[in-house]
Amino acid sequence: MSTQRDFPPAPELAISRWFNADDTPTLAGLRGEVVVIEAFQMLCPGCVSHGLPQAQRIHQTFGDELTVLGLHCVFEHHEAMTPVSLEAFLHEYRIGFPVGVDDYESGVTTPITMARYQLRGTPSLVVVDRAGRIRVHAFGQADDLLVGATLARLIDEPLP
Amino acid sequence: MSTQRDFPPAPELAISRWFNADDTPTLAGLRGEVVVIEAFQMLCPGCVSHGLPQAQRIHQTFGDELTVLGLHCVFEHHEAMTPVSLEAFLHEYRIGFPVGVDDYESGVTTPITMARYQLRGTPSLVVVDRAGRIRVHAFGQADDLLVGATLARLIDEPLP
Amino acid sequence: MSTQRDFPPAPELAISRWFNADDTPTLAGLRGEVVVIEAFQMLCPGCVSHGLPQAQRIHQTFGDELTVLGLHCVFEHHEAMTPVSLEAFLHEYRIGFPVGVDDYESGVTTPITMARYQLRGTPSLVVVDRAGRIRVHAFGQADDLLVGATLARLIDEPLP
Amino acid sequence: MSTQRDFPPAPELAISRWFNADDTPTLAGLRGEVVVIEAFQMLCPGCVSHGLPQAQRIHQTFGDELTVLGLHCVFEHHEAMTPVSLEAFLHEYRIGFPVGVDDYESGVTTPITMARYQLRGTPSLVVVDRAGRIRVHAFGQADDLLVGATLARLIDEPLP
Repeated sequence: MSTQRDFPPAPELAISRWFNADDTPTLAGLRGEVVVIEAFQMLCPGCVSHGLPQAQRIHQTFGDELTVLGLHCVFEHHEAMTPVSLEAFLHEYRIGFPVGVDDYESGVTTPITMARYQLRGTPSLVVVDRAGRIRVHAFGQADDLLVGATLARLIDEPLP
Repeated sequence: MSTQRDFPPAPELAISRWFNADDTPTLAGLRGEVVVIEAFQMLCPGCVSHGLPQAQRIHQTFGDELTVLGLHCVFEHHEAMTPVSLEAFLHEYRIGFPVGVDDYESGVTTPITMARYQLRGTPSLVVVDRAGRIRVHAFGQADDLLVGATLARLIDEPLP
Repeated sequence: MSTQRDFPPAPELAISRWFNADDTPTLAGLRGEVVVIEAFQMLCPGCVSHGLPQAQRIHQTFGDELTVLGLHCVFEHHEAMTPVSLEAFLHEYRIGFPVGVDDYESGVTTPITMARYQLRGTPSLVVVDRAGRIRVHAFGQADDLLVGATLARLIDEPLP
Repeated sequence: MSTQRDFPPAPELAISRWFNADDTPTLAGLRGEVVVIEAFQMLCPGCVSHGLPQAQRIHQTFGDELTVLGLHCVFEHHEAMTPVSLEAFLHEYRIGFPVGVDDYESGVTTPITMARYQLRGTPSLVVVDRAGRIRVHAFGQADDLLVGATLARLIDEPLP
């Protein structure tokens, strides 16, 4: 029997700075909504060619039915992908959804949120349901048909 | 108010010959299942590059959750796209789902099923719900995310 | 030491019917010109997705500097790819250069020209120089940069 | 009548720093060779999807027959595309040919080499012949067949 206990709770995001956001999104504040988190690095080729375009298609296709957040989790070349560079990247690639910079603890290479979610790398797609639980946790390329089906089901799911 | 009367009943298929099928599929016999109909012509470039690959992805992604049927509705170059040519085409392009040849009335250019469904051309994607009603009727290229979402919702829909 | 004897003479084409041609092209008649031969089958997926589009790009890019000929060499599913089907195919895929149907000897599966050129399959790209010698003989996908370079060199080559 | 005076001399490069280079390439030092210059910005989507992959294909296809140089000419978002960011970009996108950072005069937005060549933007493809003259000067996407043909002809051209 499958119960809600099967799905782990989504840890809160630790963000040092937001782009494309008027306020400061938190998973706590978004409880009740389906949240799609696209974890990326701006200099990761697979993120540029697959992950981010898919996140943009999700944003355009599902509109107000869910919330898309980018998570810039830099775990290599830290000086090369600062917020200054990220801001120009988001402008040039016309990323319109909110993007948060994953925060660091002093002296630790892997950023905080990336560690909390145990992400294997970028791009990673994480989907959090209305009850704040992790329902998708996928590294690499995810299929649009399957992602579309999963998102529709999570959108339609009643709150537990 | 939306009621089930908003969705037109799906007319029965008129098929002269089936490929990739042990029996003779009918919409009446498939009542209770979601049925995806990919209407195509084997010499239509958009069908070869977009419509049929999408139908194959649907077939692979959703497996037993729904039924995918190809409908070869030839409305031009009739002598060029006979069942003999279609059979080789299905083999070469590795189309694994059942494909029916849309039947004709003597002296009429547009095949019977194509006329019943008032299809504008090929490729066209038609989706029939478990209650036998037309829920998707799309000419041209359809977006995978949106198709995936729609199919999931129809699969999850209780019988009316 | 490399001499012109290294390049085999291109056998004449054996064509049962031409499309997109006012006259009857022959390699003998085209002596003095660079001739690009795109050997294909209309139901071969690699021909449709790669070989023929490349031949069309060659036709558009080099225009009058060389002659592009299609060679429909059917070695399987013969009844599925008759001239009637080919004619509709050429129309639908907007193939504008002359295409010849490779001829047969009674009871032999492999068509005559295909056998003369010892083609391994389709798509195959064959390039004949101004002196009637085979200079390119490539099965599968050929790189545009390399093909462009080779064609320019053959176009610029003085007659021996 | 066309004479060599029709082709303008290629101005020297003004480079503040080289990557992927043991020495300091100059056009003067490369006189006698065909030089392909790919002008790009690391955050320019068209450079990432088209210009740089084409330069890599040229590098792989023509090998020692010519020299490929990248020119990082940043004319916007200067703080976002510093040499530190460029170095990580070249690593992640596996760019193996030498890349020079276009130099600046204090207070001028457009970098020096970009101004000397009157480039309209990025990506731009510039080809310099063995005699140090500009033979290709193309903004945007260039066709592989045509580029291949042009490069072969310049490689084969005797020194004037």
